[in-house]
Order: sequence, then C-alpha cells, then structure tokens
Amino acid sequence: MLIKLGMKCHTLATSAVLRRQEFLLRSVACYSDKKRTMSLDHLEADADSIVRAITPKLDLSRHKGQAGKIAVVGGCREYTGAPYFSAISALKIGADLSHVFCTKDAAPVIKGYSPELIVHPILMESYSVSGLSDEDRRYISRNAISEVDKWMERFDCLVVGPGLGRDPLLLECVSEIIKHARQLKVPLVIDGDGLFLVTNCLDLVSGYPLAVLTPNVNEYKRLVQKVLNCEVNDQDAHDQLLSLAKRIGGVTILKKGQSDLISDGEIVKSVSIYGSPRRCGGQGDILSGSVAVFLSWARHIAAEGNLTDSPMNPMVLGCIAGSALLRRAASLAFAYKHRSTLTSDIIDFIGRSMEEICPAH
Amino acid sequence: MLIKLGMKCHTLATSAVLRRQEFLLRSVACYSDKKRTMSLDHLEADADSIVRAITPKLDLSRHKGQAGKIAVVGGCREYTGAPYFSAISALKIGADLSHVFCTKDAAPVIKGYSPELIVHPILMESYSVSGLSDEDRRYISRNAISEVDKWMERFDCLVVGPGLGRDPLLLECVSEIIKHARQLKVPLVIDGDGLFLVTNCLDLVSGYPLAVLTPNVNEYKRLVQKVLNCEVNDQDAHDQLLSLAKRIGGVTILKKGQSDLISDGEIVKSVSIYGSPRRCGGQGDILSGSVAVFLSWARHIAAEGNLTDSPMNPMVLGCIAGSALLRRAASLAFAYKHRSTLTSDIIDFIGRSMEEICPAH
Repeated sequence: MLIKLGMKCHTLATSAVLRRQEFLLRSVACYSDKKRTMSLDHLEADADSIVRAITPKLDLSRHKGQAGKIAVVGGCREYTGAPYFSAISALKIGADLSHVFCTKDAAPVIKGYSPELIVHPILMESYSVSGLSDEDRRYISRNAISEVDKWMERFDCLVVGPGLGRDPLLLECVSEIIKHARQLKVPLVIDGDGLFLVTNCLDLVSGYPLAVLTPNVNEYKRLVQKVLNCEVNDQDAHDQLLSLAKRIGGVTILKKGQSDLISDGEIVKSVSIYGSPRRCGGQGDILSGSVAVFLSWARHIAAEGNLTDSPMNPMVLGCIAGSALLRRAASLAFAYKHRSTLTSDIIDFIGRSMEEICPAH
Repeated sequence: MLIKLGMKCHTLATSAVLRRQEFLLRSVACYSDKKRTMSLDHLEADADSIVRAITPKLDLSRHKGQAGKIAVVGGCREYTGAPYFSAISALKIGADLSHVFCTKDAAPVIKGYSPELIVHPILMESYSVSGLSDEDRRYISRNAISEVDKWMERFDCLVVGPGLGRDPLLLECVSEIIKHARQLKVPLVIDGDGLFLVTNCLDLVSGYPLAVLTPNVNEYKRLVQKVLNCEVNDQDAHDQLLSLAKRIGGVTILKKGQSDLISDGEIVKSVSIYGSPRRCGGQGDILSGSVAVFLSWARHIAAEGNLTDSPMNPMVLGCIAGSALLRRAASLAFAYKHRSTLTSDIIDFIGRSMEEICPAH
C-alpha cells in the first residue's frame, strides 16, 4: 500500500512535494517496522528455557512408554514420506513409542523406512473399495475406527494429517477418529490435509483446547478466510492470530513463517531463532511430530505442578519447543549440507539439537 | 506401605509419639533397604566372565551353523520391526544363521530390512482367511506348522513372540509350534505376545526346563497374578521370582527392570550393569535374540563339559550374558546418541560390546 501511494505521488506532485511526501512515507514505514520489531521482541519466547523446563529427566527407574506414546494418522496411496518424517521425529526427540495409522497400500512402504515404527494398515481410500456396496464400505470404515479405538487411550497425542490426502471416504473415517480422540481427551496436532479437513468442518476442533493447528501460509489464509471472513493481515499478524485462535474456541495455532507465531487465543508468542533458508518438503512433518512430543511432556510436567517458571498453556509450550527444535536442527543440517539439505538430513540433527539445548546428563 | 503407615501416624498421634514412630519407621526402612542392597550385591552375576566362558572361540576349521542357528516366530500385520530386531541381534552377537517365521504380509517388509535374514511367510491371521471354511483354515494351519517342522530340528533356539500380535488364529498355530519344539527339545525364549499366550496357557511351558520367559514389568505382573495368585512384591523380589520359576516347573525367568533378575527356581542372579535410561520400544527384542544365542552357546559348552568354572544352568547363563550384552550396547549407544537413541542405534553397538568383553582374537 505504501509503495502504491508512493508511485501515485510521482505522477501527481512536484519534485519538492514529492521529496517531502517520500520523507513522510519513509518515516511512517520506519516507525511501523520499528513498532513491529519491538512488539515481536516482546513476543519472542525464551524457547531454549522452555525446552529445558518441559523435557523429562532421563531416569533409570522409568518404564517403556513413560516418555511418550505418539500416533500419526496419515499415509495414503500418494504420500508415505510425511507420516514417516512425523513419527520418526517423535522418537528422535525422545518419545518411547511411535505408531502410524495409514492405508493398506502405504503401510509396507512406511514400515520399510524404519523398523522402529508400529504401522497399522487400517485406513481406506475410495479406489480400494470401488466395487463394494455402501453397507460394506460402512462396515470397513467402522472396523478401521475400532482398530484405532483399541489403542487410543494409550496415546499421549495424535498427529492428524501428514500425508493424509483428500480422499472423501478416508477423510470421513478420519473425522470419526478425531471425534473419538476428543471424547477421550487425547490431544491433537492437526497439519497438512488434516487442516483441509478441519477448515471445512470446524466443529471437529472448535472449543477443544487440546487441539493444535500448524498451518503454513496457504493453510492459514484459508483458515482466516473461513473463520474471520477476511484476508490475512500481515501488519497485525499477532492480533489476527489471537482473534483466530479465540474464535475457534481456544485451540492453539502455530502459524508457520519466517518467524513462527503461536497463540491459544489468550497470548501470542513468536519463535524467530535462525533456521534454514531451504524450503524442501517435509519440514512441517518434523514439526508436527516434535510438537506432539513436547506438548505431551509439557502437559505431564504441568500435571505434576512443576511448571511454575513457565505458567503458560502446555499446548503453547509444546509449539514453542517444537518450533525451536526444528529451527536448530535445520540450521545445523544446512551448515553441513547447504543447498542439498533434505528433510532426512534435518532429522539426523534432531539428536544433536536436543543435546545442545538440553543435555541428557 | 511404610509411607502409608507414616501418613496414618500423622493423623492419629501426638507429636512425641509421632516422632518415635517415625524413628522406628525410618529404622525399619533403613534396615530393609540395607538388607535388600546386601542381598542384591550377593546376587550380582559376574556377567562379563560368563560371556567369556560361554562364547565359542572363533576357529578357521568351523563350519556354517556351528556358532548357532536361531529362529524367531513373530511378525504380523502390525509389527515387523520386533522380529527383525531380535533376528538381526542374534546374528550380530555371533550366530551363523537367523530365520524368521511370520505372516505373509509381514515377510516382504522384514526381508527388506536386511538381506541377512531368512524369512518364511507361513503364519496367517484371521483377517487374511475371513472367507474360508473351518476345514480350509485347519488345512492352512497344518501346512504352516509342517513348514516350521521341516526346519525345527536344525534350530539351536526358537524365540517366540517378537511382533507376534494377538490374533487368535495365529496364536493357535504358534501354540502348536511351541508343542513341537518341546517334543524335539528345542530351547524356547518367550517374549512379548508370546508371554500373553503362555500366561493364558501355562501348560505350554510348564515343566519345560529349556524354556526362558523374559517378562517386562506388566508381563511379570500378569504372570505373578496368574501363577501365584497374588500381587508383585518388590520388597522380596528375588524370593517371589524364585517361587514363580519353581511353580512353573523350573523354567528360567528373566524379569526385566532397573536390575534384571534371573531365576530357574533354584538360584536367583541379578545383572545391574549400567545400561541406558532410554526406554524406546524394541530393546526387549535385542534381548530375546541375544539370550537365544548365548543360551545355545552355554548349552554347547556345558555339553562338552567345559563349564566347570560356572556350574550354573546354561539357560540362566544365557540370560545373564544376554542382559549384560544389551546393557553394554545400550550404554555405548546412549553415550553417542543421547536422548535420540533408538533400538537400531543399540544394535549398531552390539559388535563393539562383544569385542570389549570378549575380543575375537
């Protein structure tokens, strides 16, 4: 807008008037940038301290599962990498068990990426049931949901969306899984096509404070249009994010960008730690898996009454920690692999990043 | 119990009486702790010496198979990592051949993890035979059992349970495999869902001195409830374990925990070497594969009359060695990978751990 106004001035005004106007415009822009920087400084989370505060001590007396049991719902005919990235990141952050619920065809491939994951081939896409009656399809769908239900209560968090795809039959089934998770108060991290699903059916997460949405620029744009009925306003990004989170009933939103902005409708925090200029696909999946583990840990520490130094919503703390960890791992990977950095390279640096922020001993 | 009693005192007594009672309670607790520590010291196995005593010398005149042929029965629709971890660990300890008997769907995935394993796709789950008559199912089941039978006599040990799942049809088939192994006096290591099976059908292992059970906390709890009809008693852990092993007719039990406790109903030994505080899933599979190899070696050395320094049950020796080896490998992996240590990382350190305890030259 400022640039447009400046151009208009060139055509209308004399050079003296023009110079004066340009000076004024520069001043306004400068003030606006300064104000924005100041407010962002104020919003910037002390992310490393938060990672340290919520990460559980490693202790020989602990049993398998106590450091977190995460499940990813995603993986279809087209996408198999995304659920793997999310689930393996959860383990490398420090969770004990990581499950994936995906389609039958995606399962052998995801299993093949790593023997560390427990992969359930239970979802179905329209193409795989094209000859079946509605009754048979409903039967298969009910079966899929009951397979997830058998495990649901054991999970500390469910990540819905990595590599989910947009098949209507599959999304119908995933909607039911979300409803069941909600009934059992299992926290949800919604990303990728999971966001497509909930943006079109906000009731799935509306008013559920244990839901985290992690939109990128385009997913955020659609959310803002749908919920606030307007366009994204970058000048007042944090106020708009605050309104959005509040309007969806106190879900936590992690708006991914140059700086990540996080709000639960009550506060806004930013994470601006230097990451990597590479934008290879899959980094959002590392983030969703990481946030799932950190928010589980934050909830656990909060339930023990040990979060007095950071009396924030554990969901917000989980987002801050996940964002910070991804940025550090991406930065280390980029320093090593430069332009050829891929998501797997970043995952290879999760361990060192955790160790730098929060040494195991 | 002491803590509960202490709390009760607070509400009932005057401060003088209370102080006296607290003093007595502290004394009892202190004595009890001291007694426990003393008895555990006494029980601690000289694990490294045992590994050295039972590990066969590497000798250019030996043939393929002489250092051990191990088979893992496990691997189903959900689980493929566990049988791989168990079978590959057996090879990395030093066995010559490692087989896996799993379901048809699990086989290509397990084969894909490593070309070193021989993988037989012979088990079946209910979902894969849902349209078949009972007669057809019995036929398929008989076929599966006869496929294992073809190999059975060649195996030095059968590990039953890693990634087995709980499908009733599959477990029925595995029960028969256990019975056949027993008839042929093939040693058994039972873990994971194999323990679920034998806890519900104790006759499968009862009175079979070549069976080893490797329960974790929860699996042990179910065993104690079923066999001794009481709850787990941590104060007298070794006496209870001794009774349990005796009551199941002299099977060997490796009770996994902060210290591993091992009993065959005659003696109790512990292994407390420092391992790793990570509790990622899959470490139990390394243990089952390791115990299988070590007990095979111990039986062989005992049969040759070369176990005069360690006149213990070879099954107990195998458990002690397996526990010690896993702990050392886990400790080395953790020192390198810290909080992001996964089971595959521990497997990468099996070779170095063996070399440190028992150099090949």
